[in-house]
Amino acid sequence: MKLRDLREDRLLDQLLSRLPRGKSVVAGMGDDCAVVETMNRDSFLVLKTDCVVEGVHFFWGTNARDVGWKAMMRPLSDFAATSALPEFALITLMVPEQTEVRWMKELYRGLRRAAKRFQVSIVGGETSSTPGPIAISVSVIGFVEKRRAISRRGGKPGDDLFVTGRLGRSLEKKHLQFIPRIVESRWLTDNFSIHAMMDLSDGLGTDLPRLARASKVGFKIDTKKLPLTRGANINDAISEGEDYELLFAISPRYNDRLVRSWRRKFPNLPLTRIGSLNRKSKIENRKLPGGYVHFQQSD
Amino acid sequence: MKLRDLREDRLLDQLLSRLPRGKSVVAGMGDDCAVVETMNRDSFLVLKTDCVVEGVHFFWGTNARDVGWKAMMRPLSDFAATSALPEFALITLMVPEQTEVRWMKELYRGLRRAAKRFQVSIVGGETSSTPGPIAISVSVIGFVEKRRAISRRGGKPGDDLFVTGRLGRSLEKKHLQFIPRIVESRWLTDNFSIHAMMDLSDGLGTDLPRLARASKVGFKIDTKKLPLTRGANINDAISEGEDYELLFAISPRYNDRLVRSWRRKFPNLPLTRIGSLNRKSKIENRKLPGGYVHFQQSD
Repeated sequence: MKLRDLREDRLLDQLLSRLPRGKSVVAGMGDDCAVVETMNRDSFLVLKTDCVVEGVHFFWGTNARDVGWKAMMRPLSDFAATSALPEFALITLMVPEQTEVRWMKELYRGLRRAAKRFQVSIVGGETSSTPGPIAISVSVIGFVEKRRAISRRGGKPGDDLFVTGRLGRSLEKKHLQFIPRIVESRWLTDNFSIHAMMDLSDGLGTDLPRLARASKVGFKIDTKKLPLTRGANINDAISEGEDYELLFAISPRYNDRLVRSWRRKFPNLPLTRIGSLNRKSKIENRKLPGGYVHFQQSD
Repeated sequence: MKLRDLREDRLLDQLLSRLPRGKSVVAGMGDDCAVVETMNRDSFLVLKTDCVVEGVHFFWGTNARDVGWKAMMRPLSDFAATSALPEFALITLMVPEQTEVRWMKELYRGLRRAAKRFQVSIVGGETSSTPGPIAISVSVIGFVEKRRAISRRGGKPGDDLFVTGRLGRSLEKKHLQFIPRIVESRWLTDNFSIHAMMDLSDGLGTDLPRLARASKVGFKIDTKKLPLTRGANINDAISEGEDYELLFAISPRYNDRLVRSWRRKFPNLPLTRIGSLNRKSKIENRKLPGGYVHFQQSD
């Protein structure tokens, strides 16, 4: 069997299920970040690796600075999902020998700017030549206070579902220039009890069912309420991905206070209640022809 | 200018010199591992990333389990150089969609075995498709007690230089099956004051001058004393690389005790005094036609 015949989720399940996972691992495979216990009493160590590959995540001709920005911001978006503070980054660069040094310098400029935005220190790097496309892998290491660590797994039936920002048409430009919602996520866990959270990288239609599965609940969303990017339709918002917005579950009792204080704190960033979690339905989420999960799912 | 026209050392210098480096960074670029201060009073956090790329570090047809082993052991060898204890690993996998799932499973078997050997927990992973060759990037995170952290930078004039194991002909087999000298390194820093240490990945002829430069000293080695792998000659031992043995500098006053207690502790692994550090010569280390640095350098 070839790799292309497997869905990524299943592949990772197959490959990783037997990986050693020590007692000190609080969250690992399948979560946005790995969260581990160390000697530190008050906080967890948080780890994330991600990569961008030419021909997959960007194309030749893309501004190198944008590529560097995206390579750094992707794992940082997972830190936002975990409500963790990133501190250090390691960069692995695989580049063909005919690459222009100028291009590399621009790439590093993008990596540096993105790191600086969140006060992340780039502390290590490795460069390898490759006979193939350019690939950049970034690992980020940081911390989260134990009481503020969030995963996809804590959603409860009855929780409201919120998303930040607007969804859809991110591939036109936003995916190279997005700002991970770390500030917003830290504010959320400082002021509210968030049950479950994740960042939307593969599209709401793929990511929300992941959150629901991890939380062992069902969900119901009102697609007419989805906050759309100008020019995007509902299908774009559900299927395209690369939005890097936050999706989170919170008890409905905080609804009013959350919406009011969010508007004061982040007047330029929409926060939208898109639906709620419910008891797991016996009816499996069905695939629709459009490729996305049936979103008016009911019990 | 193209990348191939730059030596890797110079490239990294160029690219990374402007990277932000926080006050909490004890060792970073140019060292084997990044070593950073955190809230922990007694130990440093230690970080390392490395990669193996098909067509560069291994070739199609190589046993996938060996590839996985090597991908994990390369950064662990840098932990040996730092005398640090690895704890967690993150894996980024870039693989073409036509890759056989069986191959991937064997790869993970190699990664798992290597991790298990040093009780490292693989806590996170990311898989991306690629239009190019297979590439595996592994980041390792761990700790080292502050008083035991070693870098390349502490060598002093007069220090003896030692190497573990045997050098040369590693490309025939050893580079896919080597065992990082973590146990030996931990024993060394538990029992002796080691001034400077590194692992030999690019060959003694490239790596020793790096240690000398980092320590701001010169060196003198007796090439006739080099511990050769069976069938290897002096040139192989100096130039080929991929040995993953330790090179370290220690005050000559410990010479007798070190050699005696090493032999008791590690009876099957040679430890060889190959030369010494000296005051920096005004004569620059000259390149010899063989591609390696003049090794009978004198003041």
